Amino acid sequence: MQIHRRGLMLVLSSPSGAGKSTISRALLEREPALVMSVSVTTRPRRPGEVDGKDYIFVSVAEYEDMVRDNALLEHARVFDNFYGTPRERVERELRAGKDVLFDVDWQGTQQLSEKTREDLVSIFILPPSHDELAVRLRKRAQDPEEVIARRMAKAADEMSHWAEYDYIVVNDVIEDSVSSVRAILVAERLKRRRQVGLSEFVQELCRV
Amino acid sequence: MQIHRRGLMLVLSSPSGAGKSTISRALLEREPALVMSVSVTTRPRRPGEVDGKDYIFVSVAEYEDMVRDNALLEHARVFDNFYGTPRERVERELRAGKDVLFDVDWQGTQQLSEKTREDLVSIFILPPSHDELAVRLRKRAQDPEEVIARRMAKAADEMSHWAEYDYIVVNDVIEDSVSSVRAILVAERLKRRRQVGLSEFVQELCRV
Repeated sequence: MQIHRRGLMLVLSSPSGAGKSTISRALLEREPALVMSVSVTTRPRRPGEVDGKDYIFVSVAEYEDMVRDNALLEHARVFDNFYGTPRERVERELRAGKDVLFDVDWQGTQQLSEKTREDLVSIFILPPSHDELAVRLRKRAQDPEEVIARRMAKAADEMSHWAEYDYIVVNDVIEDSVSSVRAILVAERLKRRRQVGLSEFVQELCRV
Repeated sequence: MQIHRRGLMLVLSSPSGAGKSTISRALLEREPALVMSVSVTTRPRRPGEVDGKDYIFVSVAEYEDMVRDNALLEHARVFDNFYGTPRERVERELRAGKDVLFDVDWQGTQQLSEKTREDLVSIFILPPSHDELAVRLRKRAQDPEEVIARRMAKAADEMSHWAEYDYIVVNDVIEDSVSSVRAILVAERLKRRRQVGLSEFVQELCRV
């Protein structure tokens, strides 16, 4: 009897400027069993974007059907466009033992955790210091002060939800943070409840 | 505001012959923040044993006082001797941010988990196959069959409690198992609830 495992859903959230994108990229490169979640969106496809890879492009009517059919694990409106995570594809990956990476904010994480508590592993990435965050939010030298202030307010709003996450990683040295997140992945895969077939495996071990 | 962390209690349990001792030794060598729990015992000190290092040697009266004062996190009788884990030393290590390693069976784990649920991380080590377990239990070529059978029955009894543990590690290649347990340690240290001072740290990040 072989033990196999059910995949997990890995959520990384952070304020803008905390290094989440760099960590996500490194993870996807180094973890062959980890795949990025692909969202549906009603916004028009941009040049270079591939349908089914960058996004699944749908009409507003199709999107509304999915919401009504409970076919989205989380969804949100951003300005005039709608975005969502299709449940079926995620479920298929998890059953195949793949882990799925999500890049969602605290609101998306809340929705995901309501629908998928057992499969979800959530990590909040924090910047190492206030000064470092300010530097990273000041992307261009000529950014006006009120733009910086708005970015800081948005970051503060996101950070105010840190306590809703399972793990907290303070991103000081990027390589250390990548190692930390990978260790979380390795450990979570070893959780008893993610390993399928253990009962039969132990039974076989115990036979006389 | 510096973040520091409260240590955790790491329990490794396994049937005899699954490689637990080798894994424990490797862990203690490579993890400077991990210390072995020292038990009290009423059995006489053997030549070469150091009081306070191998065991804390106590009289039966002292032991009974500790049980009555709820000063032991777990305790057990083995033949005519008593053994137990003194609570105070463990609590001191955890507060200092040290992790404490326990080598206890399923009964000790149950007692520990009743008293220390939040601090406890429990890992069950399984042998890779029935054949491999049989080989490891057959320590000497001249062991009589009934001795082997008794060892196997004891191993089966221990293994029947696998589902009471947080993590399951199948010990096939020892180096992989050591890496797995170390990843669990790293991940558990990053759990939100083990990090002390996060609230103040985030407050400082969010100041305008």
